[in-house]
Amino acid sequence: MKRNLLLTPGPTKVPPQLCAVLGQPIIHHRTPEFQDNLKTVVQGLKDIIQTKNDVYLLASSGTGGMEAAVVNILSPGDTAIAVDSGKFGERWVDLCRTYQANTIVHKVPWGKAPTAADIKKLLAAHPEAKAVYITLVETSTGVVTDVKSIGEVIKHSKALLVVDAVSGLAVEDLQADAWAVDMVVSGSHKGLMLPPGVAFISASSKAIAMINACPTPRLYFDLREAKKALDKTDTPFTPAIGIIIAMVESLRMIKHRGLQNSFKHFAHLAEGTRAGCKAIGMELFPDPACASIALTAVKVPAGIDGEQLTKAMRDTHGISIAGGQDQLKGKIIRIAHMGAVEESDILVGLECLEKVLQDMGHTFARGASLTAAQKAFNTAAKV
Amino acid sequence: MKRNLLLTPGPTKVPPQLCAVLGQPIIHHRTPEFQDNLKTVVQGLKDIIQTKNDVYLLASSGTGGMEAAVVNILSPGDTAIAVDSGKFGERWVDLCRTYQANTIVHKVPWGKAPTAADIKKLLAAHPEAKAVYITLVETSTGVVTDVKSIGEVIKHSKALLVVDAVSGLAVEDLQADAWAVDMVVSGSHKGLMLPPGVAFISASSKAIAMINACPTPRLYFDLREAKKALDKTDTPFTPAIGIIIAMVESLRMIKHRGLQNSFKHFAHLAEGTRAGCKAIGMELFPDPACASIALTAVKVPAGIDGEQLTKAMRDTHGISIAGGQDQLKGKIIRIAHMGAVEESDILVGLECLEKVLQDMGHTFARGASLTAAQKAFNTAAKV
Repeated sequence: MKRNLLLTPGPTKVPPQLCAVLGQPIIHHRTPEFQDNLKTVVQGLKDIIQTKNDVYLLASSGTGGMEAAVVNILSPGDTAIAVDSGKFGERWVDLCRTYQANTIVHKVPWGKAPTAADIKKLLAAHPEAKAVYITLVETSTGVVTDVKSIGEVIKHSKALLVVDAVSGLAVEDLQADAWAVDMVVSGSHKGLMLPPGVAFISASSKAIAMINACPTPRLYFDLREAKKALDKTDTPFTPAIGIIIAMVESLRMIKHRGLQNSFKHFAHLAEGTRAGCKAIGMELFPDPACASIALTAVKVPAGIDGEQLTKAMRDTHGISIAGGQDQLKGKIIRIAHMGAVEESDILVGLECLEKVLQDMGHTFARGASLTAAQKAFNTAAKV
Repeated sequence: MKRNLLLTPGPTKVPPQLCAVLGQPIIHHRTPEFQDNLKTVVQGLKDIIQTKNDVYLLASSGTGGMEAAVVNILSPGDTAIAVDSGKFGERWVDLCRTYQANTIVHKVPWGKAPTAADIKKLLAAHPEAKAVYITLVETSTGVVTDVKSIGEVIKHSKALLVVDAVSGLAVEDLQADAWAVDMVVSGSHKGLMLPPGVAFISASSKAIAMINACPTPRLYFDLREAKKALDKTDTPFTPAIGIIIAMVESLRMIKHRGLQNSFKHFAHLAEGTRAGCKAIGMELFPDPACASIALTAVKVPAGIDGEQLTKAMRDTHGISIAGGQDQLKGKIIRIAHMGAVEESDILVGLECLEKVLQDMGHTFARGASLTAAQKAFNTAAKV
């Protein structure tokens, strides 16, 4: 009976309550019953995005939602500022360049976050910019962006603030309306604890005006059609029915815990995970000032191959964590605590990490990570 | 305990065997275990498409797959021939026009199929055409296209033959290689008996050469990236993991019955359904010469509102069939027999249809549709 514990930064583990819904026969999408589900989901998504803006649902993974945030706003030659602080920031750059925008790339060293001051300077240098594309949680590095302060410097400009919150939504606080975020893109398979296959995107009135004025050809991701459909509680094309219906329950679970409690819960998990890793000689990779509570990225001890470590945890013990990407390949591991992850999952993950590190010849006090995590869990305010 | 029987032309009913798989926790997609699933699915899809060509998987509904077949082939000003014989043919036209192709629209009256002679003439008039876009089963009218004879007239031209087989794959025979079909687009939620959320598309070497030469900007639906990923048993972006894993079982079920037996099975269901409808005064809508075995579209008796009929069947009796669209609204009903539909489902559907027709004041011999269907089912060769 092989274990299958996902501590990966997406997809995240699907809890039994949601598996039960996913295993039910689907209903047709052109029915009042499905419309009730759609209405509940759209309202639930507005609640977690903390917005009164429209939220459109797309049958795609997160990148499809990101593409929608580009093809509906930019046309060739338009200026866009894209923040690249890791793999997902790179995706904004790729999208902006693919659609022939004049792409101003703001490179941030891996492990650091862009600052509001940086964005202010860039906007002053490029007042014609139509949008600034940022990433809420850069999972490749474990960094969270200070969206609030960036919102402050963008809100009086003509540019939209577009946030990739595929990772981080319902995990890190993101107050779209209060922080002047024009578009939030996210998906079903991280904070929402469901399989991948649904993306969603919010749009402020400022964004909608730009969407309506944008001449870039698009059909599947055309948010003008998504808006028309939403106004009739519909989707322009066949939606990912199964996942949307399960999202009713996922959003109910999140609401039941409460958003503020969720943020505390993930901070609590992060604290325990980091204490555990530190106790066996694994230091946090990102600058602690901008380390996200959605995942813990830590450096692999000297002499240990991070790729081999994650492979052994997965193939021998059935616990999936993530390794490093690109220049971090083999050098860090990433343990996610998003979605349905609980204290016990972290303890199981750390125990396995110790086992494999020991097998690989790393020297440390066996049990130290568990003791440290347990202590942190018991000290920190519980949710 | 409200019944929920889908006799709609997509989504179709999800059988219990597939619900069971859909209700299992997902695994991560960057694992050897998922790669095994992906390999099996790609091979299974090749088998039902009857091709040795590449098959790419996309996380989208069918329209996303159709968009991929346009943005990877056409650039602005390129000539494309789009056959419009109903709502799904219209979608090819919309896509070609959206992406600024010189779109030659071949309008076919609703209920009729395009002929090879028509296409031959069009190709002679537009030898520069890069592609001919057709629809295997036009569900809005219940018509199947003779892909084989159209393939004959296209194969020696420079144009690609692109078939929307979202409806009809694994229901109607479609021999992609033998009939010289360059691209077949389909999805998870019709013949494959799964929820919507996965599209897939095959590409011949002639298609791949055009994909590689096409300068149209695209990222999410970029088939060059899909090919690179497929060659490493991967997908360029996060796949719809849950549905893909369930597709292993869906394809196994189809293989177990055998493709040829499936075609016979659906012909058999069509025969019974049509006999049943005829017995209570409902004539086939499409030209019988091109009526698809994927669904039965029949005219509603004079004085009966088809919209009200389908609504009553669904809301009062829990049986979903489809009404007519556009000019056929209220005038026809459509009973699908794709995917997991069995004789008993058709009998239950006809019984309900009789009940509602009687309530609506239609005069006919009560029980006549059941007797006729039963007779046809028992006469026709059983699978």
